[in-house]
Amino acid sequence: MRFIHTADWHLGKLFGQRHMTEDQAYVLEELLALCRDVRPDALVLAGDVYDRAVPPPEAVALFNTVLTRLAEQGIKVLCIAGNHDSAVRLAFGAQLLQSSGVYIAGTLDAEAAPVVLSDAFGDVYFSLLPYGDPPHIRESFSLDETPSFDTALDVQIASSRAMIPQGARSVAVAHAFVIGGQTSESEHTLSVGGSDQVHADKFRPYNYTALGHLHAPQRAGAEQIRYAGSLLKYSFDESHQKKGVTLVDIDAAGAVSHTFYPLVPRHDVRIVRGKMAEIMSDEFDPLSHEDYICVELTDTDAVLAAHEKLRRVYPNLFLITRPNIHMGHSSNEVRNYERGKSDLHLFADFYAEMTTEKMTQEETEELTHIIDALEREERMQ
Amino acid sequence: MRFIHTADWHLGKLFGQRHMTEDQAYVLEELLALCRDVRPDALVLAGDVYDRAVPPPEAVALFNTVLTRLAEQGIKVLCIAGNHDSAVRLAFGAQLLQSSGVYIAGTLDAEAAPVVLSDAFGDVYFSLLPYGDPPHIRESFSLDETPSFDTALDVQIASSRAMIPQGARSVAVAHAFVIGGQTSESEHTLSVGGSDQVHADKFRPYNYTALGHLHAPQRAGAEQIRYAGSLLKYSFDESHQKKGVTLVDIDAAGAVSHTFYPLVPRHDVRIVRGKMAEIMSDEFDPLSHEDYICVELTDTDAVLAAHEKLRRVYPNLFLITRPNIHMGHSSNEVRNYERGKSDLHLFADFYAEMTTEKMTQEETEELTHIIDALEREERMQ
Repeated sequence: MRFIHTADWHLGKLFGQRHMTEDQAYVLEELLALCRDVRPDALVLAGDVYDRAVPPPEAVALFNTVLTRLAEQGIKVLCIAGNHDSAVRLAFGAQLLQSSGVYIAGTLDAEAAPVVLSDAFGDVYFSLLPYGDPPHIRESFSLDETPSFDTALDVQIASSRAMIPQGARSVAVAHAFVIGGQTSESEHTLSVGGSDQVHADKFRPYNYTALGHLHAPQRAGAEQIRYAGSLLKYSFDESHQKKGVTLVDIDAAGAVSHTFYPLVPRHDVRIVRGKMAEIMSDEFDPLSHEDYICVELTDTDAVLAAHEKLRRVYPNLFLITRPNIHMGHSSNEVRNYERGKSDLHLFADFYAEMTTEKMTQEETEELTHIIDALEREERMQ
Repeated sequence: MRFIHTADWHLGKLFGQRHMTEDQAYVLEELLALCRDVRPDALVLAGDVYDRAVPPPEAVALFNTVLTRLAEQGIKVLCIAGNHDSAVRLAFGAQLLQSSGVYIAGTLDAEAAPVVLSDAFGDVYFSLLPYGDPPHIRESFSLDETPSFDTALDVQIASSRAMIPQGARSVAVAHAFVIGGQTSESEHTLSVGGSDQVHADKFRPYNYTALGHLHAPQRAGAEQIRYAGSLLKYSFDESHQKKGVTLVDIDAAGAVSHTFYPLVPRHDVRIVRGKMAEIMSDEFDPLSHEDYICVELTDTDAVLAAHEKLRRVYPNLFLITRPNIHMGHSSNEVRNYERGKSDLHLFADFYAEMTTEKMTQEETEELTHIIDALEREERMQ
């Protein structure tokens, strides 16, 4: 059984005030070409297909095109909703699309059977475990109380594994924050204070676990429990990461091998560091000046019209930071840089600035509940 | 060939501040039961599936359920986008869903082939003509200039008929305002000043034409060119209309017979007329007091706490009008009643009230362009 593991496409995402849809279409074209080359049985997409509950129409059209072309190539698609997706919207047509080999697990379903794909050696069972926050897991699985994120996923797995024969080869597809994972700024936290983290060992019964949520490709507690990473770099702290997809092979005995295939984006996301005079010189940066750029301007003196000048060199300049100059929090550029911070942290900073005091523990908890409720509501859209 | 012609479901519509989704689910259950009884080959849905470009998730889930259940019954679904639908969003999965017998024509496509369904006597060609405003028709069909609504539809029809063999039986499915049609307040005008109207005779080559847009079931210029009408009553001026679907049979020779099947809603939409004292008496209204009600209060004197009193009799009171009392335009109730008016008329009234002058011809035209552009933009969502 051979499949491509990918995740966190975030179709329709805005980055640096720019819709990433064209960049996403470009790199997905590469992914389709890779599929023609390596002929996988399936493509596994581990959540956050879209960047938000109601994506722009161009993003919907792009996902439609990719699904259709994969189906035309005879490649099955196994896809779950992530915390950014609207479960109900993503699930439109799900039952009917199964006859085209497209399996979308959007909404939670305690009775959902694993998807069974076959190769020459028999069946492989895929547990599609869509993201659900604990209150929704409680409702869908008729639990007596609201579980932790960790217990919630245990419940989903137990329900699915009950339908997998003993000894059969199996794969889990989940969207979760596994303890110890390396985070990036472009991820939204699932919850605050670490309560969103889950243990990797619950995935041990599976031959392979295809994870989504964390944007850096990485192993999660074991070699065969992995994050594919996001389709593109979506924040500047990801500039050093390599983005791509993971090709997974499971042999007759259930042994797994995996290979990472980098995808080359139309625009790289880079941080350029230097003094204004250096940066403006022709030889300074041999890489493409069309890339999406954050300039860390190391001058210690004031620089006039920095944005205008740098824009001439880097038409896709997204951000300027001045690490050697202390700027007030009113600077838009600093604010932009902080966009990756959680809403809670941003509010805490704001509170501290306005009151010159820190929020109390009680206030922090109250605010946490409010933010949680708002995010839950947004996901219901 | 036997099919059910329906249109203008407007799933997710708000009426009287209330989401109609549950009422829509109720009456669609009836439609599914009718399908089991009369065993049509197909259900033809002539546009305005949803009430707006981004419908609430409950509406998406409802449409998904109905499609899935029809496909399970082996009934084909032929559906076009109306002016309320987002063409791109409605078209998600369209190519893949064809293998389940679901044909959705969302976006304009100059090369779209007619859908061919067969019965014992041979093929029937269905021209699915999704709604497109003239600028989009121009773009999609590579026209030299922006056509009128009438010419635009001619272009769509000519393109589709070029792919229909001479003498074959055929059906057109379109969303348009045919000249002479009876309008209702809950329709949005496609354009202002009558330019949105099209001639019925362009549909003559078809054995039957399944129209959507006008909410009253009616013929349109000929017996076999018909509006199915909306799924439910969506404004009080529709209270006297009968809502339902049309069952169409086309025989071997292409002769058409049609039967209207009323659907009984969970709540009727009614206007109750009388003096307060009359309405409050037990015998006054033998029909269900749970219906969606507009009370026309005929008292000529002031009535204290009218809303409170009437609400006790009619829990789903949507509106009170006082035809015998002149009220200032500030009355919310009068405003509500005017909700059916076009944006242009509402603005013209507002302008007249604020300036005590009428808008000039030039101003009206300018405003028309602005409203057109805004509506076009909204449809692009």
